[in-house]
Amino acid sequence: MRFDVFSLFPEIFQPYLDISILKRAIQNGLIEVRAHNIRNWAADKHHTTDDTPYGGGGGMVMKPEPVFAAVEGVLGAPPACPVILLCPQGERFDQKMARELAGFAHLALICGRYEAFDERIREHLATRVISIGDFVLTGGELPALMLMDAVGRLVPGVLGDADATQDDSFSIEGLLEYPQWTKPPVFREWRVPEILLNGHLARQQQWKRQQSLIRTLENRPDLLREAPLTDEDHEFIAQYINQRLEESQFKEE
Amino acid sequence: MRFDVFSLFPEIFQPYLDISILKRAIQNGLIEVRAHNIRNWAADKHHTTDDTPYGGGGGMVMKPEPVFAAVEGVLGAPPACPVILLCPQGERFDQKMARELAGFAHLALICGRYEAFDERIREHLATRVISIGDFVLTGGELPALMLMDAVGRLVPGVLGDADATQDDSFSIEGLLEYPQWTKPPVFREWRVPEILLNGHLARQQQWKRQQSLIRTLENRPDLLREAPLTDEDHEFIAQYINQRLEESQFKEE
Repeated sequence: MRFDVFSLFPEIFQPYLDISILKRAIQNGLIEVRAHNIRNWAADKHHTTDDTPYGGGGGMVMKPEPVFAAVEGVLGAPPACPVILLCPQGERFDQKMARELAGFAHLALICGRYEAFDERIREHLATRVISIGDFVLTGGELPALMLMDAVGRLVPGVLGDADATQDDSFSIEGLLEYPQWTKPPVFREWRVPEILLNGHLARQQQWKRQQSLIRTLENRPDLLREAPLTDEDHEFIAQYINQRLEESQFKEE
Repeated sequence: MRFDVFSLFPEIFQPYLDISILKRAIQNGLIEVRAHNIRNWAADKHHTTDDTPYGGGGGMVMKPEPVFAAVEGVLGAPPACPVILLCPQGERFDQKMARELAGFAHLALICGRYEAFDERIREHLATRVISIGDFVLTGGELPALMLMDAVGRLVPGVLGDADATQDDSFSIEGLLEYPQWTKPPVFREWRVPEILLNGHLARQQQWKRQQSLIRTLENRPDLLREAPLTDEDHEFIAQYINQRLEESQFKEE
């Protein structure tokens, strides 16, 4: 899978790509990342990439010419692959979108700086606008890295066999993951739950599923609407909620 | 504001901090970032930081001892500042949370790798668990950088006067930003909207507000529930929706 990233700070991508799973994937030829400096495509002698907005207002706006020149110069006009603009006004990125994007052999990513992109970039160059979340960053570089990380690890072969099971409950079943423990069995005065130390496998599996349901119910009930739940899950949830209600009534008495 | 970041890959933070607004903020002493390698606090000779999960299942779990040792070794026990665990099972990070966190003088961030953290880290060391979004990454380093970027730019003095207005509509009014244009007035055959080129300021302001409402309505209607809207806004939205309905009826006829 190939990523072409367009940015005013192309040098910040490599250090992150040099670590861990992504490094191995790049060495094995499974992922390729090419970072391009938009500034190199600015035609004037000062390599200007921003200018003041029409209609006033603070901040600077990213000019259309260098961005079109960079993307079309590298990928042709129009580019054959999806051209993704990273910007807080886009569709929200999630694991479902990561899986969808992992199906492409080639993606282009445009990272903004300054206050905004000239609207013509969004309308006539980008084919998709994606947001990482409802917050403001100094630029689109971290969202681009995050997208490449989340999508890249789903490319077949990138996660080794041992890691493959890492494609955890969160992404597969739409629930939050159950809590996990490793050695030592007792750290300070805190002991690993008995069922994980000495329980039978089937009981442990059931317990983990229930923990996953509890965690999702308490932290992100919104996810339960779309998660595929079994009859047993529904029964457990109803029982759990009743029990919590009884406990709170008991406290009040 | 000081950030202490705990990670197995502390070397990846500096390259991002070396650019742009964050670099200036660090040079001016407004922000300080100290990255610590959790592995240096692993006591055994192989510096082990992970182990297999109790109760089976794939992937590895981050051991409690080195993480507690690192955080408490650097910040004391218990640390005096909030200790944030970055993990997809946490509260969702957004601009409101960024503003809240910018009120602290000191934050500790713990970045995971592997399949999960030992639950004792979450229960007895972290004071808060924060998620950047509903997707799976290879580690917590990018979420930590994103949090530092979003929070850091809100620290008073970090954004210059010119940038300060960048604290855009998205963060202030809970709406998506209106589209923006800069020079040239005509790029290829695409012309900047007439009202921005030749309109009066008051009309331009009203138009921008309406564009912001349209964009939010079409891309993120969920945000309208919490956005502070004026009577004029409500009237415009009702009118816009009616107009769209009429257009779609007209098409069907």
